Amino acid sequence: MISRPLSDTDRTRHRRLREQGGRERAELDAILDAGFCCHLGVVVDGCPMVVPTVYGTDGRQLYLHGSVASRSLVAAPDAPVCVTVTHIDGLVLARSVFEHGVNYRSAMIYGAPRVVTDPAEKLEGLRILTEQAAPGQWDYARRPSRKELAATTLLALSLGEASVKTSSGPPEDGDGPDAGLGAVAYTHLTLPTITNV
Amino acid sequence: MISRPLSDTDRTRHRRLREQGGRERAELDAILDAGFCCHLGVVVDGCPMVVPTVYGTDGRQLYLHGSVASRSLVAAPDAPVCVTVTHIDGLVLARSVFEHGVNYRSAMIYGAPRVVTDPAEKLEGLRILTEQAAPGQWDYARRPSRKELAATTLLALSLGEASVKTSSGPPEDGDGPDAGLGAVAYTHLTLPTITNV
Repeated sequence: MISRPLSDTDRTRHRRLREQGGRERAELDAILDAGFCCHLGVVVDGCPMVVPTVYGTDGRQLYLHGSVASRSLVAAPDAPVCVTVTHIDGLVLARSVFEHGVNYRSAMIYGAPRVVTDPAEKLEGLRILTEQAAPGQWDYARRPSRKELAATTLLALSLGEASVKTSSGPPEDGDGPDAGLGAVAYTHLTLPTITNV
Repeated sequence: MISRPLSDTDRTRHRRLREQGGRERAELDAILDAGFCCHLGVVVDGCPMVVPTVYGTDGRQLYLHGSVASRSLVAAPDAPVCVTVTHIDGLVLARSVFEHGVNYRSAMIYGAPRVVTDPAEKLEGLRILTEQAAPGQWDYARRPSRKELAATTLLALSLGEASVKTSSGPPEDGDGPDAGLGAVAYTHLTLPTITNV
């Protein structure tokens, strides 16, 4: 497989915990493919606003949608946003409180989304978004009417600037002074994962 | 029970889908108590940054922590942030694509967090945060050393300005023109919920 590195911009460069930082585009794709819910961050009147919403991706861009009246979607077009997709895989319970943590996979996508106005792309974007959450539903359910399409804003955000962070496995406290605390004192729990239908 | 309304500020007022908007402080508490992971939104160089992190709450404020070197935590103190906690409860599959949706419970907390510098409060905040994700671990695991405390930033964010949105139940397409599409065509799935240990 040809390596496709992720972007290396000021916003996406890993400064801390580099061992948790992803480098490959394939890692981003895997995280996005595994979910359908994200948190959209926009700036409204100088203040951040973080809104949970659903997304779909075609591998080149992320589609987001909502009411044309939505405050977060009104603020987003051509303005900087950050979309974060997070999967919580488990709690990591260590010998020390300090080494406690969470196993997770997370992607952050930065950019200025564009409003999709082309009717064909808008329909295709909504299809992608619907199929991401509920595969098969686009062909099963009634598709959007002209009126419904007019009431919906669809945004497209390039995947060109993104970062990935993941953590997995047990805590790393077995070699330090805490190892003397005795038997392995942690439990690595695998929490349930939300799966599509 | 005495009713304690949530704040009614420009940021927390519900403008759309008011039937999904919570009004009671008890709803906020229930959403926060049900989880331990949130998305912290900060503004860095004019751009939003949305970071998944863990939290704990004592019912008055939310505690967040991280490395003293963390970009998001360095940006947060005394600056506007938005912390969002979301539980995805189910996919709602309707007769029409337009009526598809997600059942969820979500809380957004706005404010400018303060850095906790008092040693006793810092330890208590970390206890609350640890116990929120993993009840019992504070008494079981080794507690933070002075060096570990110095490497950790603890933020406290008041719950005074918050909004709640929830959605539950089946899609509301049974009375409209789509009812003619025949038998109930939706499946209301209850997705797994992440529970503490």
